[in-house]
Amino acid sequence: MTERARQVEQDVAAVEEVNAEFYAAFERGDIDAMTRIWLDDPETLCTHPGAEPLRGASSITRSWALIMANVPYIQFFLTDVRVSVHEDVASVTCTENVLTADERTDESSFAGGRAVATNVFVRTGDTWRLWIHHASPVISVEHHED
Amino acid sequence: MTERARQVEQDVAAVEEVNAEFYAAFERGDIDAMTRIWLDDPETLCTHPGAEPLRGASSITRSWALIMANVPYIQFFLTDVRVSVHEDVASVTCTENVLTADERTDESSFAGGRAVATNVFVRTGDTWRLWIHHASPVISVEHHED
Repeated sequence: MTERARQVEQDVAAVEEVNAEFYAAFERGDIDAMTRIWLDDPETLCTHPGAEPLRGASSITRSWALIMANVPYIQFFLTDVRVSVHEDVASVTCTENVLTADERTDESSFAGGRAVATNVFVRTGDTWRLWIHHASPVISVEHHED
Repeated sequence: MTERARQVEQDVAAVEEVNAEFYAAFERGDIDAMTRIWLDDPETLCTHPGAEPLRGASSITRSWALIMANVPYIQFFLTDVRVSVHEDVASVTCTENVLTADERTDESSFAGGRAVATNVFVRTGDTWRLWIHHASPVISVEHHED
């Protein structure tokens, strides 16, 4: 393996790890971890499913704090995670398979859902930070399940 | 104005122009222009509203050809266009206010809709090419209109 190929492999692994940590921070309701994952920049972008884009680290952090306060339980099963590194910028697409519950939900009735996300990370020193997150609901026109 | 500020201003104008041309190519049903706007790369990303991500220039071009074949009339009114240039990568967010019609539509019944898009362009030589497009429907929870 060439030095360049090794570097790309390491970058892909690092990006995949930060991407997983983004969802883990949401699951734990850990606003500090969530804040650290985002690039601290006025031009970061976050589009929650069905919502309009938010711009800037402070607006985005506020939105996550609000979401976390209103979602006592959420769990993500990520599928189709694809990472692509382009020098100091990396894209990730993934399917967010979501299991959620709120205060009115009893143990036997969780709600499920599916969204797709495009996440763009930028390299800052030794780490990767989230620059853009855009998630949207998937409208199934066909059922592929048996 | 410093040389650097002038450069950023020129970059922002150039990105805004390519972004407008992307929607104009769709309106004209011009698949050649649409193909040129995209980065010719296996890692380009396109998420149409409600759909799963498509990856790679050839898959994306095929999807646009199919959409253009099925949408005889579409017009975009872009609002809230915000451009941000980060060296050789640029992000655009905009609201796509859409007016559309199909073969079954008479002159008095156009359908309207609203989506938001995140578009990411990369600088390639003298021009900017579309690397990522993610569009999603906006679910209005409140009516702000009078």
